[in-house]
Amino acid sequence: CIFCKIIKKEEPARIIYEDKDVICFLPKTIHVYGHTLIVPKRHYESLYDIPEKDLIKLIKTAKKLTLAYKRKIKATGVNLLHASGKDAQQSVFHFHFHLFPRFKNDKLDTWPKLPKIKIDPDELLKKLKRD
Amino acid sequence: CIFCKIIKKEEPARIIYEDKDVICFLPKTIHVYGHTLIVPKRHYESLYDIPEKDLIKLIKTAKKLTLAYKRKIKATGVNLLHASGKDAQQSVFHFHFHLFPRFKNDKLDTWPKLPKIKIDPDELLKKLKRD
Repeated sequence: CIFCKIIKKEEPARIIYEDKDVICFLPKTIHVYGHTLIVPKRHYESLYDIPEKDLIKLIKTAKKLTLAYKRKIKATGVNLLHASGKDAQQSVFHFHFHLFPRFKNDKLDTWPKLPKIKIDPDELLKKLKRD
Repeated sequence: CIFCKIIKKEEPARIIYEDKDVICFLPKTIHVYGHTLIVPKRHYESLYDIPEKDLIKLIKTAKKLTLAYKRKIKATGVNLLHASGKDAQQSVFHFHFHLFPRFKNDKLDTWPKLPKIKIDPDELLKKLKRD
C-alpha cells in the first residue's frame, strides 16, 4: 500500500502534519491549490472497516486543517471529498479524505456532473428506512 | 434556514433517521439513488464554526448509514461530499454532508472535473506547514 509506505517513510511525500494516529500530505497529483490528503496511520480500506476512533481523529484533523488554511493560505472555503469502494471510484485502498481549499473566484466546480434521474422518493425512503 | 425548519417539522422532508443531535433526510433534488443529507440539529454554518462534538456525531452517522445502505439497498460503495463556505459552492448554510451510495456499473463519475494546474509543490508545502 503506497500510503503505508509513506507512513513508514519508505516512500517520499510532502508531509504537512502527522501525529501518532493521522498523517496529512500532498497528493502526487495536486488537483487544487492546497489539496491535502488526510489519512489514518493504521491501514483501513474504507468507511466499511475503519473504526469510529480513527474516523473521529480524521474528521477533527479536517476541521483543524480547514481553520489553519484560512490563516496560512487565506482559503475562504473548503471541500471534503471521500470515496469508499472501487464502485465509488476509490483509487488508493487506504482510507482518506481529500481536502480542497477554496478561494473567491477560483473558478472551480467541485460538484460532480451527474445525470438527471427519475425515482420515486417515497419508494426510496421506504427502502432506506426499513430494518 | 430551510434545514432548521425541517428539524422543527415546519417544512416536510423525507426523514430517514433522527436522534437528539442529528437528522438525515432525502434532499429536495435527489442527484443519486439513495442520496442522503446528514445534518446537525443545532444550526452551524460550516466546518469553520461547528463544534467537534457535533462533527463527530455526524461522521459516526455517516459510517452507520454506509453500513446500513449496504444491507438495505445493496450499495457497494459510498461517496461523502461536503462544502464549507459560499466560495466552496455551499448552497444551504447549515452544515451538511452529502452521502451518495454507489453501485457496480452505476456509470456515475462523482470526481469533479478540475483543470490541470501547475504549482510548485515545495513552495505550497512551505506555506501549508508554516505557523
